[in-house]
Amino acid sequence: IADQSDSKLLKLMEELHYADVTEIVHELGQDEGTYLIKLLDSNKTSDVIAELDEDVREKILENLSDKEIADELQELDTDDAADIIGELPEERQEEVIAQIEDEEHAAEIVELLRYDEDTAGGLMAKELVQVNENWNVLKCVKEMRAQAEEVTRVHSIYVVDDQNRLKGRLSLKDLLTTSTRADIKDVYIPKVDYVKVHDKAEEVAKVMSKYDLEAIPVVDELGRLVGRITIDDIVDVIKEEAEKDYQLAAGITQEVDAEDSILDLTRARLPWLFLGLMGGVGAAAIMGGFEEILENYAILFFFTPLIAAMAGNVGVQSSAIIVQGLANDDVKGSIADRLVKEMLLAMLNGAILGIVLFFFTWIWQDDHLSALAISISLFVVIIVAGIIGTFIPLFLDKRGIDPAIATGPFITTSNDIFGILIYFWIAKLILNI
Amino acid sequence: IADQSDSKLLKLMEELHYADVTEIVHELGQDEGTYLIKLLDSNKTSDVIAELDEDVREKILENLSDKEIADELQELDTDDAADIIGELPEERQEEVIAQIEDEEHAAEIVELLRYDEDTAGGLMAKELVQVNENWNVLKCVKEMRAQAEEVTRVHSIYVVDDQNRLKGRLSLKDLLTTSTRADIKDVYIPKVDYVKVHDKAEEVAKVMSKYDLEAIPVVDELGRLVGRITIDDIVDVIKEEAEKDYQLAAGITQEVDAEDSILDLTRARLPWLFLGLMGGVGAAAIMGGFEEILENYAILFFFTPLIAAMAGNVGVQSSAIIVQGLANDDVKGSIADRLVKEMLLAMLNGAILGIVLFFFTWIWQDDHLSALAISISLFVVIIVAGIIGTFIPLFLDKRGIDPAIATGPFITTSNDIFGILIYFWIAKLILNI
Repeated sequence: IADQSDSKLLKLMEELHYADVTEIVHELGQDEGTYLIKLLDSNKTSDVIAELDEDVREKILENLSDKEIADELQELDTDDAADIIGELPEERQEEVIAQIEDEEHAAEIVELLRYDEDTAGGLMAKELVQVNENWNVLKCVKEMRAQAEEVTRVHSIYVVDDQNRLKGRLSLKDLLTTSTRADIKDVYIPKVDYVKVHDKAEEVAKVMSKYDLEAIPVVDELGRLVGRITIDDIVDVIKEEAEKDYQLAAGITQEVDAEDSILDLTRARLPWLFLGLMGGVGAAAIMGGFEEILENYAILFFFTPLIAAMAGNVGVQSSAIIVQGLANDDVKGSIADRLVKEMLLAMLNGAILGIVLFFFTWIWQDDHLSALAISISLFVVIIVAGIIGTFIPLFLDKRGIDPAIATGPFITTSNDIFGILIYFWIAKLILNI
Repeated sequence: IADQSDSKLLKLMEELHYADVTEIVHELGQDEGTYLIKLLDSNKTSDVIAELDEDVREKILENLSDKEIADELQELDTDDAADIIGELPEERQEEVIAQIEDEEHAAEIVELLRYDEDTAGGLMAKELVQVNENWNVLKCVKEMRAQAEEVTRVHSIYVVDDQNRLKGRLSLKDLLTTSTRADIKDVYIPKVDYVKVHDKAEEVAKVMSKYDLEAIPVVDELGRLVGRITIDDIVDVIKEEAEKDYQLAAGITQEVDAEDSILDLTRARLPWLFLGLMGGVGAAAIMGGFEEILENYAILFFFTPLIAAMAGNVGVQSSAIIVQGLANDDVKGSIADRLVKEMLLAMLNGAILGIVLFFFTWIWQDDHLSALAISISLFVVIIVAGIIGTFIPLFLDKRGIDPAIATGPFITTSNDIFGILIYFWIAKLILNI
């Protein structure tokens, strides 16, 4: 497609939304992608650059001059511009910022760079519409027109006092239906949800989705309005959060996707596999310790994968429910209550599965004592696995550690080892070996 | 707290946001919750009812009369009202609808009830601001004021022709900065993203988050504007989608949470555990078939939990990456390309893990042939597990089945069985038994 007729290409691209152009750049790769971006005007390409995956963007920015990058950033909202600059090598950051013509824009970007990526400050943009409580509606509308030029989408209009402290908000709807002579002081809504600049991104997401907000103002320690966060950034936070938890549950550490290199994927996957290997070696060592019963009760060894699998599955189920409950803030009651409930649940599941396994093993091996030993062990293992799966994430959460790391291979591996140990121990007891 | 002083309680509740009142109702439970809802005015309680969890809402609505429910619905946007009515038993639906005083509102709710919950039609609300292309800005502003009364939040103003077909949109910002005498025809933006009424909810979520939209119009088969979907509903769709995938990966079938009853939780968890049991029994049967080598090579049996665990872990990792890639539409290339990549990746991981296991087993048992057999088997098992984990979700996706069901217990169980079969087969080959 590319390299043929620039004007034809240009025309085609102009028709497309920037998100579609972004997809095209992703497919073209570094060289042709850069070519395309240089070809288009910076109005659209700045959005394209903001939408690109981090690794692709890094490569394309390497091919652009400081000045070219600065021009692109000029077109972007401060939050996106700050994100992009934050990814550049440090020496380059200063050079690019120095090239931004609009000094106010540059100063705002520098301010945003100060905040941690995972906080409200890291998510917010400086672009917002604010009015002083002492203005009247007419002045307000005038000022808003000027400010609105800069702001892509107007959500709420924030009302501040002379010290720039957030006082309340005005809706566009109200403004449409109020006399132009009224004072803002008399018409604004003094109740407004806000977040503090150092609040965690996750917290912001919770507040915004709980109250169904489309934008939320951000204030500093003194209550002064410093920025605003829009729902589209929060949608990204929610998605990333969900992907991270999902990957942790599947035993993948870093954020990777199907298109990453084999080396990156190995780095993300190998640590958990290594943990699994250690667990398996541990299980093998335990079984080695019970070698003396192998001769008479070989059947016990045939069921070790079953015991390990069930211990792992029950553990993952229990921990997943807890992890999700914690994320949604709907885990109530004490840890003890939780453990009792999980124990009852595991007893019910364990009893059903134990009975099924008993009859199967009895029919297969015609040895009801072995069958009983295996089934009762399964019953106990399921209960212990459920308790471990419930306790670990609750414990981690109490200690301030992300409970999501407890799901997946971590639980599976520890439950494998515990499961097999308990299994042989109980079986020996019942069989009187 | 409750049952003391109604007026004090009322005052307290009035200060709170409906989302906070919802949390309080959740904690109070059915009886006191109903009491509280009857106490408050329907302006706030309608939002509370809309926010409640489905099971709590069901119980509270049982305690309200048809008329009371109808009054609550009157206050709600059509989409929320339709969702609530849709949950009522069928006989009751008609009675409640008949009690809604505003006939237009009732008609709109009935229309929305026709659509499947998981489609754009099921998500959309009828409340929107629309203007005719033949009006001028002044008339437009006047009409908008009237319409805006009904609409909680104005996003875009949709422009339609005389046949109510969607032509484009107007932003409030443009309206603020345009002369009142201009014709809408000359100022509206003819490019507008929209979805069709039967599009899937997931698709709508993709479009809205790709293009960073805060609201999207919904059109019917003839291109006529029938409703609009706002981003807050989409945030819910994204969250539910993520929770569903997470639970499937963890082996939980229905949507349950930590607060559900033990019976509900068992119903959601037992099927997958049963699958795991079958897998374990299968593995035991396979091992029973290799009983003759038990005497000389007992060590092979000690490593079956390790082999099963590694096969399961690798399978879950591979499938999770594919499932996530499919959900984000960024899996490129053919199935064959994917499988080759996964094979290379699995070979790298398998080689590293195999070498580690070889040295461990050699040192432990001082039998390099067994150690070699176990390690090479592990290597092959990892490759096969990776391929199965990659292939199954891609295959399901091609067939139009949600690939997320392939992660978790499904992959784990099938990989357990395959893994152990391959393991003994290769070990026998190497050890020349």
